[in-house]
Amino acid sequence: MTKDTVFPEKGIKAYRSSFLDFLDDPFYSPEADCVRFIQDGLLVLDNGKIREIGDYEQLKDRYLDIPIVSYPGMLIMPGFIDTHIHYPQTEMIAAYGEQLLEWLTKYTFPTEGKFKDKDYAKKVAAFFLNELLKNGTTTALVFAAVYPQSADAFFEEAYSRNLCMIAGKVMMDRNAPDFLLDTPESSYTETKELIEKWHKKGRLRYAVTPRFSITSSNAQLQMAGKLLKEYPDVYLHTHLSENVDEVAWVKELFPECSGYLDTYDQAGLVGNRSVFAHGVQLTDEEFQCLSAAKSAIAFCPTSNLFLGSGLFKLEQAKSKEYPVKVGLGTDVGAGTSFSILQTANEAYKVSQLRRQKPTPFQALYLATLGGAKALELQDYIGNFNVGKEADFIVLDLRATPLMTFRNPAPKPTTLEELADAVFTLMMMGDDRAIHATYIMGQLAYEKTGK
Amino acid sequence: MTKDTVFPEKGIKAYRSSFLDFLDDPFYSPEADCVRFIQDGLLVLDNGKIREIGDYEQLKDRYLDIPIVSYPGMLIMPGFIDTHIHYPQTEMIAAYGEQLLEWLTKYTFPTEGKFKDKDYAKKVAAFFLNELLKNGTTTALVFAAVYPQSADAFFEEAYSRNLCMIAGKVMMDRNAPDFLLDTPESSYTETKELIEKWHKKGRLRYAVTPRFSITSSNAQLQMAGKLLKEYPDVYLHTHLSENVDEVAWVKELFPECSGYLDTYDQAGLVGNRSVFAHGVQLTDEEFQCLSAAKSAIAFCPTSNLFLGSGLFKLEQAKSKEYPVKVGLGTDVGAGTSFSILQTANEAYKVSQLRRQKPTPFQALYLATLGGAKALELQDYIGNFNVGKEADFIVLDLRATPLMTFRNPAPKPTTLEELADAVFTLMMMGDDRAIHATYIMGQLAYEKTGK
Repeated sequence: MTKDTVFPEKGIKAYRSSFLDFLDDPFYSPEADCVRFIQDGLLVLDNGKIREIGDYEQLKDRYLDIPIVSYPGMLIMPGFIDTHIHYPQTEMIAAYGEQLLEWLTKYTFPTEGKFKDKDYAKKVAAFFLNELLKNGTTTALVFAAVYPQSADAFFEEAYSRNLCMIAGKVMMDRNAPDFLLDTPESSYTETKELIEKWHKKGRLRYAVTPRFSITSSNAQLQMAGKLLKEYPDVYLHTHLSENVDEVAWVKELFPECSGYLDTYDQAGLVGNRSVFAHGVQLTDEEFQCLSAAKSAIAFCPTSNLFLGSGLFKLEQAKSKEYPVKVGLGTDVGAGTSFSILQTANEAYKVSQLRRQKPTPFQALYLATLGGAKALELQDYIGNFNVGKEADFIVLDLRATPLMTFRNPAPKPTTLEELADAVFTLMMMGDDRAIHATYIMGQLAYEKTGK
Repeated sequence: MTKDTVFPEKGIKAYRSSFLDFLDDPFYSPEADCVRFIQDGLLVLDNGKIREIGDYEQLKDRYLDIPIVSYPGMLIMPGFIDTHIHYPQTEMIAAYGEQLLEWLTKYTFPTEGKFKDKDYAKKVAAFFLNELLKNGTTTALVFAAVYPQSADAFFEEAYSRNLCMIAGKVMMDRNAPDFLLDTPESSYTETKELIEKWHKKGRLRYAVTPRFSITSSNAQLQMAGKLLKEYPDVYLHTHLSENVDEVAWVKELFPECSGYLDTYDQAGLVGNRSVFAHGVQLTDEEFQCLSAAKSAIAFCPTSNLFLGSGLFKLEQAKSKEYPVKVGLGTDVGAGTSFSILQTANEAYKVSQLRRQKPTPFQALYLATLGGAKALELQDYIGNFNVGKEADFIVLDLRATPLMTFRNPAPKPTTLEELADAVFTLMMMGDDRAIHATYIMGQLAYEKTGK
């Protein structure tokens, strides 16, 4: 080290390890063109943003005076992105025995009622965010409860952690217990206030969040559409075509609409910042409509299996003719794990039941850059391109004795070996495989013990 | 403590905790009659067998001088029983991209070839058994490889741990690489020698193990039948009707048989000590035949999903009219976890997709007493009845922060609370929920850290 540092300015940091991220979508382009794998790489940050990434040997001379954090034998990836999750349902994960509509009535609605108490909501939000970080998830699209203070609680906790999170208060004005209902007018006013308060504050974004067409009247959906017109860069987050009985009920409730998606479309809710959870029961026409509108689907396999909703047609969403943006969603509390790795495990199983087989790289693309594109955040996060915000995770492919036994070589050297290694990661990995999580270059979680 | 001990003889030990086991089958009898739950209980062992179980307050005065091991806040259950698993496939768990027949050719056969080397086989067997114990599995029905020394290696390792294990060398004489093939005659001779050497040595049992009708000629199946006649208390362990293409191929190979099960039946392989893995594609007639023969099915949900084989009809197997014995199987390496808890998680999901919902107690019954009955071991293991061998596990229902958050009360007091708690255990639990594993009263595994 010399006294004349090459980069004397504050905020330069560097990390040495293996790196994996995606430059393009491996559902549409050859994997060799999409996967960026640097066996011995250096990731250089400048005030929490990516300044440079490349081979360690090529870059090291230019960063002689920068302290380098090394993670030998680990794999660094962009943080995982969860495109659909409910924070108030954390405490009711794994509730027994029901399919969607009964499950909502029996478990969800009573639980969400507790979130009128802001102190309680803050406690749960804090636990929830810590679980996300522990599982390597750095960005999520999140349902709060109907109470505006439940959204405040979430945003306050996310803001204090400098997280890139999108959330919204639920809008619901019918077909639920009175204590959970708002009205078209109150939901409009409260949402508007929340948007003004939180949208683009720090790294936060707001999503207008009608629960689904069963609990929102057409008048309320129209109010949601009005908000989207007034604030064209906020999001729309809702559920769509999850369960057969749900779809049938929506048809009864909206006889004037051609189908479930149309109930949203007629209110102006189907656009390029709209994210629809599930889509298990979508028709061909609805897939085409989502493609034309550049809307996104959150594929939530552990939830779809847990509630017996069905098998999402991933290959149809990712078709060449009518491509639809797709991200992975845990959908906790109907989903059974906070881990995007476990979610990818069950995404693979759902596909296998349909005689499809997404590759390991396709799955990890959905978990990172694909999720960022689904959330229209690809300019900020999702891979290690220069200028992006440095939310990243340090993965241990040998986090358990069984993973070590399965991966005896210390680290992969070819793309084929890497594919095998990351497939074992997504089939056997869980929070134990997350060695550390960084938010804009700051250590936000580190695993203790092995 | 006084000097005049009530039970001065060696080998008396006692454990205090909450206890859960099953007295009968909750698929057929009311749960309240089947579930034995002792909130604050004492389990007393005598030389590794169960001497007594009951309320601590009622029993404690009679065991004043016996050292009592306490597990406050934990739940003690009988060890889990895995009714179908392949030890040589440990190192190829989570192999990407294929359904059954291609998966066998691409991954399984090359891997099993390594088990000609007995030293290698011993190493893998040791790792495998440690994984089982770490996951709370105390008994398993296990495929070795085709080489007799691979079975020797497994039995030696299991014997040294005093485990109740059933295993056998694979018989396969066609449709596989030459290096994996035996002949009808050699498989007969080698199996016979192994039976003589290992069956009923310590707690070990032997299973005659033709891989399946695709890799065993009718001549070899007949030899298997001959062995079962000569040794009426050994087991038959094979695969049955897992995958659509497999069933079609079996039909081609056995034009004289009425179906897949009939290929075994005509060789005398369908009896009350026969265990058939999978049965996903079984016909109604085949279910009835299995019921009449008192044969068992190993339900392997993580494997059936991973290979895309399909959804097992659990409710048909457990029908009142034609009941079939059923146990849970991990089927590692096609199964994705050694954990019977994770296997129960996916058994629930498979059932939900079929609009069924096995209760938490039904699932845990399959994992314990149901598995013991499937393996005709109910006189020895499966619950805490007096005289049985004390293989038991200490479960931590609050093994992770999320499980603790979901189960804020330290322990359940009613059957309903218990059902909820053990459901969260099977949905979120894995090896981390196994605090300790005991084999005949001896500590065989203890978790380190939390």
